Amino acid sequence: MNVSRPSVHPVEAPPLTDGAAHNAPRVRMKDVHGMPGTLGGLALRLLQFIFAAVSLCVMATTSDFPSVTAFKYLVAAVSLQCLWSFLLAVVDAYALLVRRSLRNCTIVGLFTVGDAITSTLTFSSACSSAGITVLIGNDLDKCGVNHCVQFESATAMAFLSWFAVSPSFLLNFWSLASR
Amino acid sequence: MNVSRPSVHPVEAPPLTDGAAHNAPRVRMKDVHGMPGTLGGLALRLLQFIFAAVSLCVMATTSDFPSVTAFKYLVAAVSLQCLWSFLLAVVDAYALLVRRSLRNCTIVGLFTVGDAITSTLTFSSACSSAGITVLIGNDLDKCGVNHCVQFESATAMAFLSWFAVSPSFLLNFWSLASR
Repeated sequence: MNVSRPSVHPVEAPPLTDGAAHNAPRVRMKDVHGMPGTLGGLALRLLQFIFAAVSLCVMATTSDFPSVTAFKYLVAAVSLQCLWSFLLAVVDAYALLVRRSLRNCTIVGLFTVGDAITSTLTFSSACSSAGITVLIGNDLDKCGVNHCVQFESATAMAFLSWFAVSPSFLLNFWSLASR
Repeated sequence: MNVSRPSVHPVEAPPLTDGAAHNAPRVRMKDVHGMPGTLGGLALRLLQFIFAAVSLCVMATTSDFPSVTAFKYLVAAVSLQCLWSFLLAVVDAYALLVRRSLRNCTIVGLFTVGDAITSTLTFSSACSSAGITVLIGNDLDKCGVNHCVQFESATAMAFLSWFAVSPSFLLNFWSLASR
């Protein structure tokens, strides 16, 4: 009976390592470039910030933007996007410098909600500005008396900023759901 | 040596049931109302379809919507939303009737991509229509010569349709990420 005991232990071991192997892909899933605290995440934040800032500057330099509600809304939305992306770029840079992980459930949840709000605002303002720009340029053909090029550039930059926010939001939401 | 064999089998069993217990909470996570194949999911699809259909009807009955690109885009986007939501409502109703689960990874992935596309289109068209509606009604004060009430109603219905699509998308994306 004593002889059989050592043979029982090697049999017990494989299921334990099998369980660890089952957990391994879930941990690896969170190490995606573009998440908070990674170089990809910092790059995305900087892109969002730069596009939103350019959109804000271009729109704010036109003299007649306050006469259209949609353009005022664009200025407000990209200003908020600028602030949010700059703040998170600083947080990402700090996390990279001191090599701290930002994979805390509360932090990722906060980032996800913030990204959802700012991206929705940026996208909606870009869409409404695009609607007005197309109305002025194509439907009414009044580009002669309006700053069509500036309006179009600001709208395009707001769309690009939204394109850069979407991966951040989706990656954060994904990592929140898969933990 | 032969005596020890039966005792090896009971030892092997516990890690297997332990692994099953680890999987149990992940399965429970997917049983959320609003997912495909649930009553909540069917209700969401019907709401999306009704709001999109009302928006389409209201906008299509105005005589001057083809003169504005944003309104034409709204008609196209809510038509697509109508078709997509109706199709998925039929699929949900079928799954409920024959008691089949729609929690296949490929199916949920397909639903997620479809929801993402249609919700983005519906939301962007609603935003651009809202921009034009506010421009006509508030900035230019030309509601006397335009169908402002119809434009506003169609835009509001498109927004409501988007509000009903968003939970479907987020729930599908969540269940895709958490499996």
